[in-house]
Amino acid sequence: MDGFLSQIFCVFFGLPVGAADKVALGVHSVIACTPRTMNAVTDYSINDLIVKRWSPYSFANRSVSDEDLRSLFEAARWAASSYNEQPWSFIVAKKEEAEEFARVLSCLVEFNQKWAGAASVLVLGITRLNFQRNNKPNRAAVHDLGLAACSLVLEATARGLSVHQMIGIVPERVREIYSVPADCEPMTAIAIGYAGDPNDLPEELRARDTSRRPRKPLKEFVFRGKWGVASSLF
Amino acid sequence: MDGFLSQIFCVFFGLPVGAADKVALGVHSVIACTPRTMNAVTDYSINDLIVKRWSPYSFANRSVSDEDLRSLFEAARWAASSYNEQPWSFIVAKKEEAEEFARVLSCLVEFNQKWAGAASVLVLGITRLNFQRNNKPNRAAVHDLGLAACSLVLEATARGLSVHQMIGIVPERVREIYSVPADCEPMTAIAIGYAGDPNDLPEELRARDTSRRPRKPLKEFVFRGKWGVASSLF
Repeated sequence: MDGFLSQIFCVFFGLPVGAADKVALGVHSVIACTPRTMNAVTDYSINDLIVKRWSPYSFANRSVSDEDLRSLFEAARWAASSYNEQPWSFIVAKKEEAEEFARVLSCLVEFNQKWAGAASVLVLGITRLNFQRNNKPNRAAVHDLGLAACSLVLEATARGLSVHQMIGIVPERVREIYSVPADCEPMTAIAIGYAGDPNDLPEELRARDTSRRPRKPLKEFVFRGKWGVASSLF
Repeated sequence: MDGFLSQIFCVFFGLPVGAADKVALGVHSVIACTPRTMNAVTDYSINDLIVKRWSPYSFANRSVSDEDLRSLFEAARWAASSYNEQPWSFIVAKKEEAEEFARVLSCLVEFNQKWAGAASVLVLGITRLNFQRNNKPNRAAVHDLGLAACSLVLEATARGLSVHQMIGIVPERVREIYSVPADCEPMTAIAIGYAGDPNDLPEELRARDTSRRPRKPLKEFVFRGKWGVASSLF
């Protein structure tokens, strides 16, 4: 792609200028290209992975390598957990395994099915509600699934991948299809792939995919001494 | 500290060899020193922050700067959340604010009070169980507190700080002391500081602080097609 066209292309798709060099021609292809970015605009300096992490609705038609996938779950594996219980489990389906992928997709609520089928990999996140060692309730079970998921997501970010997590699944469907044990709770789905072209999305989703969602000011959620009283840090 | 002694010191405290150069003499001082490390031994390559993150029980007598603290909460702020609800809130106390620090410490279960008082900063993690926009239950509330906490912890790791998260708090005490609203749930405490010398710990904790806790094999929690059937990735 030559200079001017390349520049227009990159600005339009939020790519760093120059990234289009390797892009296969055809407006909707974003193959072998620097990932589309949507950096956080922060008040204070934070590390690059957290700045870059965002949740696209659009995914490019590009496979995720097994090597990358292994590292994503390895990252989840090393998250902290209460009593080192590691209560998380994941069910994975790659798009290449069409039947299995469709089964995971069918576990999402209707709204999420509209866009998540474009991802290259779908994952279900499940957590064990009781400790394995004594069968007592693990109050951290759902929290610790969140820790593992964040670890997976930031590893994905480090590899130029994008992830969109969903709470919108049908837990009883997951339980039935995959024979999930009674003391384990299907909680989330995780769409993984390369961020794609928002123009491929249904109109209702397009706007959501072209802006980073704002955050509350720090004063509204970091307190000191009493609920609602902002910490003097901010 | 000269070569041989330095090497012994570093190996003993899990520091990179050479890190003791800046250590103030006196066996228990780990001031202005490269942070003590306890790297994960991984089966697959993952990014350095996740490799380095671990949860010490020992903390050095060294303040955390306000600049670092601001960035930790900024990192939490940019976590993903269901409907962008950002259900997390934090109550922060620095050790320098002795009365406030003691109040947060008093919200931990007895076991955690034995070691967490050595941290430089204590934080309580609270999540809003209902969506602010429609007051309906947010099924992701606790999960998303976990996402924000992981983001905070990895930012801390990037800054050479260590964090130890706890589920062992007395939620009703937090609610009472800090006037936490009925639809918000106190969930966790987070101890932040520089990893210290395990010899300063009570004996029962010392062993825990000198080894990285093992993880389940990936085959035991990454499935395909059916619960308990390992993904072919591993």
